[in-house]
Amino acid sequence: MAITMYDLAGAEAERRFSPFCWRARMALAHKGLDVETIPWRFTEKEKLPQPNAGRVPVIVDGDRVVHDSWAIAEYLDKNYPDRPSLLDGSVGRGLARFVQNWTETVLHIGEIRLVLLDIHGHLGPADQAYFRADRETRFKTTLEDVVKDREARLPAFRASLDPLRRTVERQNFVSGSKPAYPDYIVFGAFQWARAISDFELLAADDPVRAWRGRMLDLFGGLAGRAPAYGG
Amino acid sequence: MAITMYDLAGAEAERRFSPFCWRARMALAHKGLDVETIPWRFTEKEKLPQPNAGRVPVIVDGDRVVHDSWAIAEYLDKNYPDRPSLLDGSVGRGLARFVQNWTETVLHIGEIRLVLLDIHGHLGPADQAYFRADRETRFKTTLEDVVKDREARLPAFRASLDPLRRTVERQNFVSGSKPAYPDYIVFGAFQWARAISDFELLAADDPVRAWRGRMLDLFGGLAGRAPAYGG
Repeated sequence: MAITMYDLAGAEAERRFSPFCWRARMALAHKGLDVETIPWRFTEKEKLPQPNAGRVPVIVDGDRVVHDSWAIAEYLDKNYPDRPSLLDGSVGRGLARFVQNWTETVLHIGEIRLVLLDIHGHLGPADQAYFRADRETRFKTTLEDVVKDREARLPAFRASLDPLRRTVERQNFVSGSKPAYPDYIVFGAFQWARAISDFELLAADDPVRAWRGRMLDLFGGLAGRAPAYGG
Repeated sequence: MAITMYDLAGAEAERRFSPFCWRARMALAHKGLDVETIPWRFTEKEKLPQPNAGRVPVIVDGDRVVHDSWAIAEYLDKNYPDRPSLLDGSVGRGLARFVQNWTETVLHIGEIRLVLLDIHGHLGPADQAYFRADRETRFKTTLEDVVKDREARLPAFRASLDPLRRTVERQNFVSGSKPAYPDYIVFGAFQWARAISDFELLAADDPVRAWRGRMLDLFGGLAGRAPAYGG
């Protein structure tokens, strides 16, 4: 029986934009597991299976419910050990945490100030009201103000990608010659932006963009086929 | 027979301050291999065994000469496979490159503008002349000017450590519950600064400082015993 995954969606059901859900989606594909995704919106907290933390991804595998993208990766490695490994040993697992922390403190924080308003533009009315109120409280200003002057902030954002750039210039994937879970962590951040914004984060000749292209092609173009902007 | 390692030294032979040599030194200790280090100065290029690239570390193991810290780590894993692994599999190896690229594009570049002049202060006269000429050409200004206002740049440097901070706050080492080569890569950057500068990079309560303390304690306090400033 296919695994079910609750996946954050915009007003269009097929527009999936959560960086954390993309981690889980790519991880399931890496394992070669069938998945049926259920579009889920910010304001549908009561629709999630128990237990959950009010956020997605949540997966249901038979009678087991797993929430949190990291917990899902560990669950998949533990329960499907005969499939390709996501975290590959104790050092791989330890360093995946470093990659995650880099992604969340550098990439996510840089990106959110570039695309926050574009997320809002892709939500239905109920989610828009929730999202504006929640994020404006968090940022202590309007969504419009958060992304103001984003053109001016783009060079610093691109410079912050140097560790990633140098890595994927010298090897095909963050994890080496083949992709593994750390690639999906980093890729989730870019797929998030692509899904909801036409603001291009990466210059045409950026090695990071070439790597993103390799990620979009994985698993028969799984991520590349999804509704999104640009390449 | 012990491995010989050429190790960058200051005017005092025991003051070892190369971040790359510290990677190799810790890697040799991780493998439990005996090593005899030979103090080497910037201006002693002709004293290195062949082949070399004019830089240290260079190790001599029987009739084999290996230069470049990464090549040394790979050599040790390949030739001493029965000893604890440094890179631990293909994902560990791939991600170690990411950690290295983060260290070199964020840590080293941030630190050099804090401690460059202090390096000069610990060199003998011949190395001082070489170092000043070489680095002033590279930076297109005086050593004094590079580190000017370093107090003002310290908060941004400390903020740039967020990915490392969050990681070692949640697990004992960069590589997980035990140290591995990626820890030595990052640690080399801090040991470099400690060896030649009393300018404290880390606040007393910084989790990065607690991790550095754990690194200083490894292998019977190998790095902690070396001539250096502060904790």
